Amino acid sequence: MTALSTKVEIFYDVISPYSWLAFEVLCRYRSHWDMKLVLRPCYLGGIMKESGNRPPMMVPSKGLYMNKDLIRNANYYQVPLKLMEDPFTVMVERGSLRAQRFLTAIDLYFPEHLEDVSRSLWTRVWSKEEDIVDNESLFLAAKNAKMLDSAIEKCLKLLNEAAVKETLKKTTEEVVEHGAFGAPTIIIHTNSGPEMFFGSDRFPLIAEIMKQTWKGPLPDFKSNL
Amino acid sequence: MTALSTKVEIFYDVISPYSWLAFEVLCRYRSHWDMKLVLRPCYLGGIMKESGNRPPMMVPSKGLYMNKDLIRNANYYQVPLKLMEDPFTVMVERGSLRAQRFLTAIDLYFPEHLEDVSRSLWTRVWSKEEDIVDNESLFLAAKNAKMLDSAIEKCLKLLNEAAVKETLKKTTEEVVEHGAFGAPTIIIHTNSGPEMFFGSDRFPLIAEIMKQTWKGPLPDFKSNL
Repeated sequence: MTALSTKVEIFYDVISPYSWLAFEVLCRYRSHWDMKLVLRPCYLGGIMKESGNRPPMMVPSKGLYMNKDLIRNANYYQVPLKLMEDPFTVMVERGSLRAQRFLTAIDLYFPEHLEDVSRSLWTRVWSKEEDIVDNESLFLAAKNAKMLDSAIEKCLKLLNEAAVKETLKKTTEEVVEHGAFGAPTIIIHTNSGPEMFFGSDRFPLIAEIMKQTWKGPLPDFKSNL
Repeated sequence: MTALSTKVEIFYDVISPYSWLAFEVLCRYRSHWDMKLVLRPCYLGGIMKESGNRPPMMVPSKGLYMNKDLIRNANYYQVPLKLMEDPFTVMVERGSLRAQRFLTAIDLYFPEHLEDVSRSLWTRVWSKEEDIVDNESLFLAAKNAKMLDSAIEKCLKLLNEAAVKETLKKTTEEVVEHGAFGAPTIIIHTNSGPEMFFGSDRFPLIAEIMKQTWKGPLPDFKSNL
């Protein structure tokens, strides 16, 4: 990474499975692309509301296809994502507001833990179908990511503080202003301005715009070809 | 292509720009992948109605993004697609029912012309913003694709015949039964059954399932690497 590295922001919510795929790919490419990767937890519910978008599963055949597509992509990207048995309860009823506030607090006070706790929350909700709403769940996710108990307790106490709520709201508004209608939303800050990409399937195009090389989903492994 | 070549069907509508991209990619890969490619003109309006899906441009920020995404992908795939000045009139008011019936008639009686006339219609509507509804427009598209005048006249006369209408309706029902909710819909007939893919961005996964190699959007050009 140099002073002229391209700034790349990924706006994500741990309730979004495609966000997990894109997050892992970008983390892998930190050592391959000349970029400054910035992790931006935001609130998907807010993006959907602001943009007037609705979840793909509202169209039944789209929901069925998405399940297949997720598993295919999880294999392709080598991310241990599994389908949920009860997506409605997890995604709609329980949601991700508390998880994203927790990540926002971590980003504000212990940013060095943001990547690992994000991954830990995804592993809970999208690999083990474990809760990510209750304090105990958030505590365990952060504990697994090697945060100190005192730091975790501090972040849990901050969940309902205005500073945390406002920061999450502002981050969400910021990505909506970039034109977001879902997650992940990836912003590539090129010399001629920000370029917005949606989803986890535009990496060949992102590489092109960054003048970097797309080496497939596993850049650290040598191909057998 | 061998007797054991994988059958690959692309269900498309010339009103769908992403269908054009996928169509060109699959045509290019005919000489690279061991497949029997089958072109299946269907009616996107029917798929949307049957599946309860709605066009992406109904969400304003999604529509704006799609315009950017289309141009990026047109460059990446090297397809001369341009944005329309008046997509509402062209896509919603004028639509593609007559164009798809015309392609259905060609598929039934002059299938050797199906690929070129499809491309010719896409070039009219998605590159030159020319009409694809009036008889004269359909005639010119087919003429450009080197069909004989007598053959074109025959297909134009067949547009309102039950045989053509019914075939298009059945093809559309067939792809909806495969789980389609838009276009392009690509069916890979693997040994263990049909696998459905939506869109023009799943070729690395399609290659994997077919045990073929994805060589990027331009397999006929040698890379500079």
